[in-house]
Amino acid sequence: MSLELYHGGPGANSLKVLLTMAEKGIDYVDHKIDLHNFEQHSPEFVKINPRGQVPALVHDGKVITESTVICEYLDAIFPDQVPLRPKDEYWRAQMRIWTKFVDEYFCWCVSTLGWEMLGKTFMRQMNEAEFEAHVAKVPTHEQQVKWRTARKGFPQDVLDEERRKIRYSVGKLEIDLAQRRWLAGDEYSLADICTYAIAVSVPRMQPDIMNDEDTPRAMEWLRAVEARPAVQKTIADAPWRQPQPARAVNA
Amino acid sequence: MSLELYHGGPGANSLKVLLTMAEKGIDYVDHKIDLHNFEQHSPEFVKINPRGQVPALVHDGKVITESTVICEYLDAIFPDQVPLRPKDEYWRAQMRIWTKFVDEYFCWCVSTLGWEMLGKTFMRQMNEAEFEAHVAKVPTHEQQVKWRTARKGFPQDVLDEERRKIRYSVGKLEIDLAQRRWLAGDEYSLADICTYAIAVSVPRMQPDIMNDEDTPRAMEWLRAVEARPAVQKTIADAPWRQPQPARAVNA
Repeated sequence: MSLELYHGGPGANSLKVLLTMAEKGIDYVDHKIDLHNFEQHSPEFVKINPRGQVPALVHDGKVITESTVICEYLDAIFPDQVPLRPKDEYWRAQMRIWTKFVDEYFCWCVSTLGWEMLGKTFMRQMNEAEFEAHVAKVPTHEQQVKWRTARKGFPQDVLDEERRKIRYSVGKLEIDLAQRRWLAGDEYSLADICTYAIAVSVPRMQPDIMNDEDTPRAMEWLRAVEARPAVQKTIADAPWRQPQPARAVNA
Repeated sequence: MSLELYHGGPGANSLKVLLTMAEKGIDYVDHKIDLHNFEQHSPEFVKINPRGQVPALVHDGKVITESTVICEYLDAIFPDQVPLRPKDEYWRAQMRIWTKFVDEYFCWCVSTLGWEMLGKTFMRQMNEAEFEAHVAKVPTHEQQVKWRTARKGFPQDVLDEERRKIRYSVGKLEIDLAQRRWLAGDEYSLADICTYAIAVSVPRMQPDIMNDEDTPRAMEWLRAVEARPAVQKTIADAPWRQPQPARAVNA
């Protein structure tokens, strides 16, 4: 069996799949895509995922995209190695409601604020021609619009609205974690992995929204996730864990 | 076993679950929620789904929300009655990529144009106080904003962008259906059900985008879905099939 993973390193959507791989102890061929050099838009990678987005899994020549779908796929084809989906169908449904919420809501507001930071820094350091040459290679219309908006700077009302959504999302974590240890019941699951991959940046980037005083359960959960050996190993060398934080590109 | 379904009739997200129930021949207690009288925001229903959205499934007292999650749940707990998820995990992943695309992209652009129509008609027939009394009962902030925007009318650039997204979505159907009979392989699946529930309104509402000349495969697929006895039965009395089309509320 051949299993190859294209990913952007331990952050955002790529982190979901890296954590799933590590937790289940799956061997794979590792292809790190250099997001800061726009390798995700290179002709070679666009052949694998025409949307130019990481992560992408290639299993015996067949491509699977979309991080959450990849995680469920890996859990299905390696069912015996640390199951990451609740056996009980009710809790499995709750797991999917969480991963769906993350993909449809939480990841977008966190992502916009990440892009705002990128726009303010390295995007504005490029001249117009250089920047547009990069944008021209972005395969999806929506991402092109996002790049251009990020370079100009998002309007303040958009940023305020995204912060409101992050606050709502962290509040939702706080509510669910008052009732149970993990997000989809008594066992650690893909709900925790997929939510952690997005939530992990919030205390660092929006410390007034997610912190020990206001959201103690969410913070405790974050630490419980990070205490897991598979998570420790996966995030050990993450740029955002280094003393000098580097820029992270959110999908 | 007790199985109760709260739904808004055969349209949009409710239609996904009604089609799944019919296809699998599942018996359930039917609770039709009158969306035109805002029954989804009534205290009784908000107790079941605090987001005030249909559909919602109650299985032995446990509530499951989110139409796509409900469909997978039903297929999991009734695995032998007309399986609606491909057995092969690669195709099951492709099924999830489609349902995800519908939930994150396709349904929203179709929904906005539906709301635009609602806004122009019955929302503007209410006076301000009456309208705001209804909006006050809408449990989610995002839906409140959508109601108010719909009443004012969406800006033309928003409507144009939504039409561009519908065109992109139908184009994606056309591409996939050039390669296979159903959206997730050789068998009819939840990918078809969930996409049909949203796509069905497009030829009627945006005939210049989806029609026999420009998108023949998508139209042929739509008819193939509708030829299924379970679909026939489910949509037989749908208001949108009657000579005098009624208004449909998209989630």
